[in-house]
Amino acid sequence: MDTELRKLGQRARQVARHMRTMGTNTKNEALKAISGTLLDRQGDILDANARDLEAGQKAGLDGHMCERLMLNESRLQGMARDVLSVAALPDPIGVSFDARTLPNGLRISKRRVPIGVIGVIYESRPNVTVDIAVLCLKSGNAAILRGGKEATHSNRALAKAVSAGCEKAGVPGETIQLIRSQDRALVKEMLRANHYIDMIIPRGGAGLHQFAIENATIPVITGGIGICHIFVDQSADPEKAPPIVYNAKVQRPTVCNALDVLLIHSAVADSLLPKIAHALAQAEVELRCGPRAINILKAHPLAKAAGPDDFDTEFLSLVLAVKVVDSLGDALEHIDEHSTQHSDAILTQDYGHAMRFVDAVDSAAVYVNASTRFTDGGQFGLGAEVAISTQRLHARGPMALQELTTYKWVVLGDGQIRA
Amino acid sequence: MDTELRKLGQRARQVARHMRTMGTNTKNEALKAISGTLLDRQGDILDANARDLEAGQKAGLDGHMCERLMLNESRLQGMARDVLSVAALPDPIGVSFDARTLPNGLRISKRRVPIGVIGVIYESRPNVTVDIAVLCLKSGNAAILRGGKEATHSNRALAKAVSAGCEKAGVPGETIQLIRSQDRALVKEMLRANHYIDMIIPRGGAGLHQFAIENATIPVITGGIGICHIFVDQSADPEKAPPIVYNAKVQRPTVCNALDVLLIHSAVADSLLPKIAHALAQAEVELRCGPRAINILKAHPLAKAAGPDDFDTEFLSLVLAVKVVDSLGDALEHIDEHSTQHSDAILTQDYGHAMRFVDAVDSAAVYVNASTRFTDGGQFGLGAEVAISTQRLHARGPMALQELTTYKWVVLGDGQIRA
Repeated sequence: MDTELRKLGQRARQVARHMRTMGTNTKNEALKAISGTLLDRQGDILDANARDLEAGQKAGLDGHMCERLMLNESRLQGMARDVLSVAALPDPIGVSFDARTLPNGLRISKRRVPIGVIGVIYESRPNVTVDIAVLCLKSGNAAILRGGKEATHSNRALAKAVSAGCEKAGVPGETIQLIRSQDRALVKEMLRANHYIDMIIPRGGAGLHQFAIENATIPVITGGIGICHIFVDQSADPEKAPPIVYNAKVQRPTVCNALDVLLIHSAVADSLLPKIAHALAQAEVELRCGPRAINILKAHPLAKAAGPDDFDTEFLSLVLAVKVVDSLGDALEHIDEHSTQHSDAILTQDYGHAMRFVDAVDSAAVYVNASTRFTDGGQFGLGAEVAISTQRLHARGPMALQELTTYKWVVLGDGQIRA
Repeated sequence: MDTELRKLGQRARQVARHMRTMGTNTKNEALKAISGTLLDRQGDILDANARDLEAGQKAGLDGHMCERLMLNESRLQGMARDVLSVAALPDPIGVSFDARTLPNGLRISKRRVPIGVIGVIYESRPNVTVDIAVLCLKSGNAAILRGGKEATHSNRALAKAVSAGCEKAGVPGETIQLIRSQDRALVKEMLRANHYIDMIIPRGGAGLHQFAIENATIPVITGGIGICHIFVDQSADPEKAPPIVYNAKVQRPTVCNALDVLLIHSAVADSLLPKIAHALAQAEVELRCGPRAINILKAHPLAKAAGPDDFDTEFLSLVLAVKVVDSLGDALEHIDEHSTQHSDAILTQDYGHAMRFVDAVDSAAVYVNASTRFTDGGQFGLGAEVAISTQRLHARGPMALQELTTYKWVVLGDGQIRA
């Protein structure tokens, strides 16, 4: 194993051991100090970011990527505020649950404890460095971060500020450690460092997730990719359906919980689909239509025939695939076949159909009569999130502080032995 | 991918989809039918088992292995009874939790759902075939099983009985599928069949677990291995300590929650260690002692100096490593260094020491004043267990029905859109 990685791993294990019994007050003091340090070091951080931006422009990074990479005074202030709001969240560690007394008098319960060392592999946005670091700190975990090459200087400056804040509050600066080497082979080694890392969160595109699944010996949380469906049922409220579809598609099209596929019942497609298309036209949403849908929308300037992949594509842009179906059953079959198990909705006034959809659709979040855009830690009232999981073990959907914990069984006795 | 495995995988996915919405009554009817079928087919099952035993004896299987492999009338009746007791357990599927109404009126909750398809790789004991099959069925999962070569005929006969029972109750027989091929390469393929299998449970020795971790692209539940510690503190009740240590070591030495290492505080070692050793001598427990312990036990006929690996060995037999330490801190350090994160106990009358031990020891189960032998689904009141997890994600400690489930978020609205 690479020497840097082993050193980081050993140090992370030591720190994680220390953090297991760290009190809430200490962690919150560290968070407040980090918030302050981010502002105090604004000059250094923005200088480092300017170097990354300059290098990025030379390397031909497109405008969208530069925008993601860019920090400024107001973004830094936002980051500092977000750190304070994590300090204000309840501490998940130490919470007891499923407590009971057994017939033999043993008092057993589960107690929430930190996972240990969290490894995160992410791409260009430097604010992820701070987001992850503070959520790991609050949940009592040590973090080993591997950021994108484009943000090298920004990430180092931010990580330094976080470590300095920790140390001001008497918390080890190595609570968060950034891998300095940009050697790509290191990612693979990191994924196999199961002696030092307990969970891997990849934050990036499908390629990164697939690479992590293929190579990791450490449990991986996959997610962040969603082909989201809305099924407009025969009984959908014709007034509410267009704004919900509009919101799910348009409010922020570049994120994983944005709508990708609209399914509409044939009994209402003639009347309702043109209305929905009209609403979407205000945001110039392109419609990729199945044969029956294009027949209804043939006069619509932004409608065209769907290609072979359009019902299996996460568009991340103002494009929507549209298909007419003949029944709830057909809609369920389509979703089951094309699902990424992220977020899917039914719009209906029919109680039985709502229940059947909720029962049958096997996604992280299943909606009745609401926009898919709510699948988010903040929106669900969980506080900040580290990722949205679309895998099935440990956690599904938004992963916030509680999802960065595990539990141990605590068994209190007074001499019990097993018969 | 191997053709048999792909066929099994595709069928398991279909069955799992069907099982997602299967009612509790249907599942319980199937369990009752399975219990009956096991008894009805007793002749076939015992004949198949006799063939395995004969082949095993020819192949030189030792007495212990033959004993594990052997079925008889009374064992089959026990299995049939166990299936009925699974029918009597509450169904974990459909339970709602963490329900709340958000300020915007959205009603959100988590709902327990099956994981999907569970893959299990196990060794010689044929009863595992039935145990796993019925727990998967009750929790709404399909199962793909790969049993040991020694039990081929027994496993096939048992799997047939389970499938026949399912079909009697109108549940697809492929709820449980046994891989017929004994090609070892298939295990590796199974570990990478992430399109078809959602979770892998290896049940076997450390080698199997390591192989699964190294090769799986599917999440693996590791466990079943425990180097368990008891620390006898200075203030331990001198009357209760010997029976607890005796129980933890002797009651069933071949299992993972049996005691392996005794740590004892130096202030009471002179008085208490000989008493404990005397108790253990009744079961002829061999003591592998550190230098200070051997000094105290030099007259004890079964005490000898510990070798270099004795504090890192799961003995699974009547052997115990013994070490004298000078403080709770030293005990915690020893446990942290040698832990397999299974089950560890402190015997103490000191409240502060008990709390400190519970806080600091990072194991699946942490005990005060009780035997480590209680780490068990049945003992914890969870019903039958599929495994004991010593990894950190998804589930820790005994894994029963609830640990074979995941959840989805259900979000009920009346037109909400995100601002």
